[in-house]
Amino acid sequence: MAANDQIAQLRQLVEERLAQVYPQGPDLLVQPVGYVLAGGGKRLRPTLSLLAAQACGGPVELALPGAVAVEILHNFTLVHDDVMDQDHTRHGQPTVHKKWAEGVAILAGDALFILALQELQRSGQNRAKMTTLFLAGALAVCEGQALDIEYETRADVTVEQYLRMIDLKTGNLLGLAAQLGALAVGATDAAADDLRDYGQLLGRAFQIQDDMLELYSDAETMGKSLGSDVLSEKKTYLLIRGLELAPDEIRKGLNQARQDWQGGLVLLRHVLDTTGIKAEAKELIEANITSALEKLTHLASAAQPLRDFATLVMNRKQ
Amino acid sequence: MAANDQIAQLRQLVEERLAQVYPQGPDLLVQPVGYVLAGGGKRLRPTLSLLAAQACGGPVELALPGAVAVEILHNFTLVHDDVMDQDHTRHGQPTVHKKWAEGVAILAGDALFILALQELQRSGQNRAKMTTLFLAGALAVCEGQALDIEYETRADVTVEQYLRMIDLKTGNLLGLAAQLGALAVGATDAAADDLRDYGQLLGRAFQIQDDMLELYSDAETMGKSLGSDVLSEKKTYLLIRGLELAPDEIRKGLNQARQDWQGGLVLLRHVLDTTGIKAEAKELIEANITSALEKLTHLASAAQPLRDFATLVMNRKQ
Repeated sequence: MAANDQIAQLRQLVEERLAQVYPQGPDLLVQPVGYVLAGGGKRLRPTLSLLAAQACGGPVELALPGAVAVEILHNFTLVHDDVMDQDHTRHGQPTVHKKWAEGVAILAGDALFILALQELQRSGQNRAKMTTLFLAGALAVCEGQALDIEYETRADVTVEQYLRMIDLKTGNLLGLAAQLGALAVGATDAAADDLRDYGQLLGRAFQIQDDMLELYSDAETMGKSLGSDVLSEKKTYLLIRGLELAPDEIRKGLNQARQDWQGGLVLLRHVLDTTGIKAEAKELIEANITSALEKLTHLASAAQPLRDFATLVMNRKQ
Repeated sequence: MAANDQIAQLRQLVEERLAQVYPQGPDLLVQPVGYVLAGGGKRLRPTLSLLAAQACGGPVELALPGAVAVEILHNFTLVHDDVMDQDHTRHGQPTVHKKWAEGVAILAGDALFILALQELQRSGQNRAKMTTLFLAGALAVCEGQALDIEYETRADVTVEQYLRMIDLKTGNLLGLAAQLGALAVGATDAAADDLRDYGQLLGRAFQIQDDMLELYSDAETMGKSLGSDVLSEKKTYLLIRGLELAPDEIRKGLNQARQDWQGGLVLLRHVLDTTGIKAEAKELIEANITSALEKLTHLASAAQPLRDFATLVMNRKQ
């Protein structure tokens, strides 16, 4: 089966289950929770989780609770992050706090996290271990977000600190998704750890690519409000390196972007191109993808769909 | 041992463990989490949990993870509720979103909930069952809060709907605390269920008493910002009955309170006194306490501290 078809099929399984997660309760919870879970997105994490289960020779059904739990966890963080960052659009639609109210978004996020854990409890073997890993992963996301907020107001963030932060916020969840998929079908700890590392490295590449798209894509393709992260000086690989190599020009570009987004963008892109920072970021992405694929060595041919998955993820334009 | 001494000792155990829950992480999480968990409060839920364990003949140490988990869960809901309600004071201190920022409060709340579950995973026997109950309890609190928000903008809330809402928001968590304490020491399901019912009924009485204190106490004793719940027309037993029996006078009192809190309060108290609603609320509290104590019948003399606990709780002035 072509990788695309296989992934579409796994995604379908995830969508079906997501639609059943919270059928009954107060309107003010059921509606926003349903809205979020039906809201699309690429479902990368649960797809990865199910692919990992398959690569370990297990039936995807066993891995579905963990896969869906990670996707709900991811959505919980998005809903709360959107409140914190005051973002108004997500997947081309109004965010929960814009469509309802901040209080509703906080509450719906809380409920999503609980629902994620309830979903995870549907797992069979290894449930206790998976719960422990899941909670550690969720706490790591919060820690990454705390660092992200702290770094916004700091000009001296290093690349190392940045990588630690995105490992916590992004790599960590992709790693968790892959690891849970493996554990749900009874893989060895060694295989599950390899898959976790694969997911983490892929996640790191994914996040740096995300930083690139924020500056080199356009709002229509991304389907989210662009620019807010740049203007609030959220630390990205590009911004940190820019502040190291050409601080004055980056400052000038940021100031311009505050008045004239397109004009500022042209300036910022010019600095990043001529200093070689854009090329550097591309190399870093490639290097992490290569390291990720190396983690699949022990899984041999069974891991081919995971290799295809890495390619698919990195070829995205949004 | 006198009930007060015993309770002080159990509370000390809880405080000690709470101080160790989250020693390391980003400052922007460790500080607000530490602030919240050191912030006092009556620790009713964990105390109840440990008393329930003792009443079932078990050592309190076994019940400590569950007890502490419920207390952290309770604090998580307070931090998020304070953001939603824009309350500025809690236990006489600035709320997290006032002391830091809303984003920090949302994030610290999220971390608290995860820490609560991590604490719960330290339980020995019955852990899976306790986790399931804990998640259901946490979701119920969210559902109660959703109804609370919905009811704020509705004038036609019935006493029945109100009782369902406070059962979800308050009774549920006291019931959970007692049930987990019993299960942690290997009590029978029947004993654990009786203790859950005891906690739920006590919680209902507690909440109606809370509604009374909101109108009949003063801000200094309560240690929280009074009036905001009244002014936002949060539904309480007193307000619902007032709107049923004397809607015009209640409206007049509320309008007056918006300009002149003390003057409005005098008016509102007068209506509630003369219509007999205050006396009615007192009777309802008593009836629930009586029902709660009846649930202890099967525990015989072992439940004496729980009987004393009910008295202690209901004699509070804040």
